[in-house]
Formats: sequence, C-alpha cells, structure tokens
Amino acid sequence: MKVGDTEYRSIWNDDEDPRSVHVIDQRALPFSLEVMTLRSAGEVCDAISGMAVRGAPLIGAAAAWGVFLSFLEHSPESDVYSAVMNDAARLKATRPTAVNLAWAVDYMTDVLNKNADAEVMKRSARALCDMEAERSRSIGVHGLSLIEEIMRKKGGGVVNILTHCNAGWLACVDYGTALAPVYLAHDQGIRVHVWIDETRPRNQGSRLTAWELTNHGVPCTLVTDNAGGHLMQQGLVDIAIVGCDRATASGDVANKIGTYLKALAAYDNGVPFYSAFPVSTFDMSIDSPGQIEIEERDADEVRVIAGMPKNINETQAKNANPSSLYEEEQQVYICHPDMDAVNYGFDVTPARLITGLITDRGICGADKKSILKLLS
Amino acid sequence: MKVGDTEYRSIWNDDEDPRSVHVIDQRALPFSLEVMTLRSAGEVCDAISGMAVRGAPLIGAAAAWGVFLSFLEHSPESDVYSAVMNDAARLKATRPTAVNLAWAVDYMTDVLNKNADAEVMKRSARALCDMEAERSRSIGVHGLSLIEEIMRKKGGGVVNILTHCNAGWLACVDYGTALAPVYLAHDQGIRVHVWIDETRPRNQGSRLTAWELTNHGVPCTLVTDNAGGHLMQQGLVDIAIVGCDRATASGDVANKIGTYLKALAAYDNGVPFYSAFPVSTFDMSIDSPGQIEIEERDADEVRVIAGMPKNINETQAKNANPSSLYEEEQQVYICHPDMDAVNYGFDVTPARLITGLITDRGICGADKKSILKLLS
Repeated sequence: MKVGDTEYRSIWNDDEDPRSVHVIDQRALPFSLEVMTLRSAGEVCDAISGMAVRGAPLIGAAAAWGVFLSFLEHSPESDVYSAVMNDAARLKATRPTAVNLAWAVDYMTDVLNKNADAEVMKRSARALCDMEAERSRSIGVHGLSLIEEIMRKKGGGVVNILTHCNAGWLACVDYGTALAPVYLAHDQGIRVHVWIDETRPRNQGSRLTAWELTNHGVPCTLVTDNAGGHLMQQGLVDIAIVGCDRATASGDVANKIGTYLKALAAYDNGVPFYSAFPVSTFDMSIDSPGQIEIEERDADEVRVIAGMPKNINETQAKNANPSSLYEEEQQVYICHPDMDAVNYGFDVTPARLITGLITDRGICGADKKSILKLLS
Repeated sequence: MKVGDTEYRSIWNDDEDPRSVHVIDQRALPFSLEVMTLRSAGEVCDAISGMAVRGAPLIGAAAAWGVFLSFLEHSPESDVYSAVMNDAARLKATRPTAVNLAWAVDYMTDVLNKNADAEVMKRSARALCDMEAERSRSIGVHGLSLIEEIMRKKGGGVVNILTHCNAGWLACVDYGTALAPVYLAHDQGIRVHVWIDETRPRNQGSRLTAWELTNHGVPCTLVTDNAGGHLMQQGLVDIAIVGCDRATASGDVANKIGTYLKALAAYDNGVPFYSAFPVSTFDMSIDSPGQIEIEERDADEVRVIAGMPKNINETQAKNANPSSLYEEEQQVYICHPDMDAVNYGFDVTPARLITGLITDRGICGADKKSILKLLS
C-alpha cells in the first residue's frame, strides 16, 4: 500500500542486498518510518520477539526469511540441516501462539530438506510473501462486496467502518486482513471512513492503523476503546471488521483484547460484525471458545504508555519523516509505578455475535457447517 | 477514607484557617498528594474548571464553600448580596452539566438571603459536606448487602468487583458512590478485590480509583478498558458497580464513556450490573436514553496521555509524597499529532442491561415503577 507516493510492503528482499531482508520497524511508527535490515536468523528472532515485526501473516513471512538467512549463515558447515533446524525452533519459539509462524518455518525447512540451495530457498521465501499478499487481496475482494452493498443502501453515502487493533498491511505483507476490503473500496472510489479504536495497551490502532490508513489517503478518526458502543448507538457505524488470531471450527474468533466488547455492541445495535482472515487461521482441532488459551503479557504494558512528548517542537513532530524522532519517544506511567495490573492479550468472541467471516476463499457464516462447506 | 494512617475527606475547612477551604489537587494524583488552599470564590472557580476538583458531589460541595468565601470577600461592602450572587453565577457556570453544582450554590445563597452571617454560612457549608458524606455512606450501607450476599454464596471467598472511572471518595466528600459499598465491606473484614478500568481518555481509573483504593488498603488490580469482557467470560467478576452522571426516570444511566460496553458484557455473562448514586441524580423530566445530550470534549484528550516519565529515578517515583514529583509529569502523543480524533465524554446504558440502582434511599430496579416507588 502507499506511504505518500511510494508503494510499500511490510517486508521485502531485494537483489542489491540479497543476503538480507528488510522490514519496517513498527515500534517507530507513527513517529518515524524506519527500515530495519536483518542479516541473520537471530536478528529475525529479535525483531519478532521485540515487536519490531508483528501481525500473524508478517511474523510468518519474517520467520520464513529467518530460515533462509540461517541457511546462508550455516551453509558452509558440515551439518547445515541440524543447524538450521535449531534456528527454526528458536524462530518458532518467539511467539508461541502464532499458528502462521510454525507453518511458515515448516514450509521453509521442507524446502531445505528437498533442496539445500540458497536460490531455491530465496525463491520459496519470496513466493510465500507473494502468496500472503495475494491471500490478503482475496480477502479484500470478498469483503469489498459487503462495503459495496452498504454503499448502495446508503445511496452512495460514506460507509463508516469500525476496526480494532491493526489488521492492515503492516500486520500482513500487503493489503491486510480487516483493512483489505477498505483499501480496495477506497481505491475504487467508494467513500469510506474508518473509526479506529486506539487499542490499549499497545495502541496498535492509534500508532499503526491510523498511520497506514492516513498515509494511503483513507479518511479515518481515532477514538478511545471506550467509544465504539456509543458510536454504534448513534448510528455512526455501518459495519465492524476486525482481524483474527485463531478461529475455532465453530466460528469463534480469538482476537486482540476488547474485540468481544465491540462485537457485543454491534450485536446490540444491529451493526454487521465481521472478522477477516486467511483460512489458515482456522484451528479445526477446537470448536469452543474455552479451548483457546489466552496469552498473559507483561503488566508494564498496562502501567506504561509510550508516545512522543508534546513539548517537542510541534513542527518537528508534525513533519515526522525517516529521522531520529523515534528516539525522542518517552514512556510514562499512567498509574503509581507500584500498582498491580494484569494484561490479557486477547479475548474470544463467540460465534453467535459474528455476522460472518471474510476469508481468502469467500465469506461464510460463523458456524461449523458453513465453515466446513467453505473449506471443502 | 484513609491515606495511609490518616483519615481524609476530599474537601475540608478547619478552625485554624477558617477563612479558607482545603481540597486535594486531583490533577497531581497518583504521583503527589497535594493539598490546595482556596481563599476566594475565584480560586474555587479555577479549581473546578481546571479539574483540580471533579466529581459531581465534590463540585457541589466546593461551590458551596465558594459562596461562603465570596461572602467573606464582600461582607464589608454595602451590597454584599448582589456581589455574592455575581460569584454564585460564575460558580454555576464552571461545569454547566453538573446538576449538584447549581443545587449547592442555590442552597448557600438561600442561607445568605435569610441570614447574612459568616458563622451561619460556614456551618451551612459544613452541614452540606456532612450531608454529602452521609448520603454516600447510605449508598454504601445499601450496596453492602449485595456484596455480603455474594460473599455468602462464595462461602467467604473473595468478592471481585469491577468498576469504571472514579466514583469513589475523591469524587464525593467521603466514601464515594460506586465505591462506598466496597469501602464498607472492606472495613467490615469482607475480602473484596476490585478490577479497575483505566478509563481512557483521562485515566480516572488508573490515576484516582487505583490511588484511593490502594491507600485505603483495598486489594485492586488495574486493567485496560478492553479487558472487562474477558474477565467476565472467565468468571473473574462477581458484580460490576459504576457511578452515574444522570439517570432517566426509566432507569437509563449516563456515565463515563465505556460504561455501556461493560454493561453489555455483564448482561452477556450473567454478572449483576449496578449503578450507584444519590437520588438527586435522577432527572425525572426525561425517560429515554436518547434524551440525554452527550458532551463532546477536546480531541487532544484522545491524542495525548499524561503520566510520569519512566526514566525518573524509580525510588523517587515509588515514594511519591507531597513533593514536586507532579511537576515532572509529561504529556505524550499516542498518535501522529495531526491525527483526527473525537472524544465523547459519556455514553448511556439502557435500563434493560442494569440489574439495579443503588441509592442513598435503598436499592431499586432500573424501571420507572420501581424508581417512583423508591422516590415516593
């Protein structure tokens, strides 16, 4: 998608520096656009566990490149395969709940197993990225039909979409999941406007979703996580679209903490609520919300918020470019530093609250029968 | 309530300095406990409009003292009454939506009208504060029965209470509204634990509720506004109690933005959801949610968060005492400074989601018939 006039992906490998992979350092957004160059599996691990790279599809893509880089590091050794398998295990361990990550790593070690060749592995990692981008585009094509339908019902009026967290191109390789239909609609000239939940504790909404939509030129407005219910009560939301970290065979959706609250509000106000994801996100081995384990993260994410000091020269802050602005970022306690806090990363929205699932294979109902039909 | 070993109210007048009133500067919490001494109606106006003093009952009490201070300022003049009435109008204008404020000012000007005597006016302002504290205690006594019942059902286990924003003693003169039952239960030896929503955008939960509960010794845990639904799904909440800014004759409750989302989650999980307030909060002239106008506030409250820089000496921050720590507070942008944002202050929870209303006159259902019976 676009950043100003330039087309970007969230990860790329280029022929000028073929023994590396480039990613956007998402920790620096929205204050700086900084590109990180990763040259080893260890650097990829650090980028994932340090949250420079996040979002299930992007983590998978990065880990695939991590296997490639590991191969380059170890290829002169006698036992390349076991050295790479070691790194593969480290890559998988960076974010244990991400299904895509294990899948992408296994895909690359399978390639290695069949053909221990750097060029083949590079082509495979690139193909995996292209496939991820194409999956996202397919999600966009299917979801676009929903936005078009709302636009027609509103006689061409602005379609208001609410989203939570970041399920855009930054989280994927391109297009995004929840935001893919939005980008396709905008690029076709449909008037869309996005309400962005700030998404505490890490503020992926205010930092990432706001940045990527704004830079692509999509009208959008930031709200607190508390505001979505009121917006829906006031008729200011036509459709809610969120991403998904893991979906059960019955259509329950684990996603960023707070998603469930928005689904309840959508249901209460007759607002269609969709979750968008590639079919690889289905975990067909489980079929009820309680079977999804919820990651508990560092409580300091609740106690502390990071941002750009307001007293920094306003012109400087407003014209944030690839620069050192990010270094000025400050972390502040929003409570007494000793305060107890807990930090659940996700919640599970039960299928009964979900209007439908937008996937790369089409839209289906959030129920086992519809899901099995979609996957068959 | 207690701050360490000392009993505090949020506002007081003492005989050592009878021509003034003291309040806790709530902007400095939780990082510093700073007492402000107000010596004129103008200083009271500034304290209210500048948010040093907030919470409907406390604003009323402060304004009552403002009328007293105005009388002291003007009592040698020939036309004391009209000078005080001028200040009374200024006091009322500081927060136009606060019902209590106008009521408290009128109460004091009535006293003045009958008896232009400093001692009488001081006694009247003190009586108003005592009455506010007693109202809160009554809310506590009634709400306590609900907590006791849950404790019995749980065989003496910990009662988990979720609250939103700050409806504690800081917002009132003492005890609070939503928190009054919690303090009474704790002081009786019932094991309670409070989940505190941080309450963006102004973080009254993480700053004020967390501070006052901790200092009184009530076990509590801070969570993001996104977490409450998940907590309820996991059975970690026994009862939700929130405050109220205005209640309709049908039992709909306008309260801090985000309250509606927690009510939906409570309803969906069979968790009792109560709103606690003095009966003066009923606006019997309206009987549906749509009749309550929602204040839209400065969008910078969404874009900017204030807190204590994490890099400040940790020991210094942890031992925050009446000191200059508050001066170190920093405001940070959580999004690009140019980002569009909207900031609705309140939402309305429809009566159908509310288990009951805890008032100073008793508990009643959230419906017109029960409310009329309570008020009769």
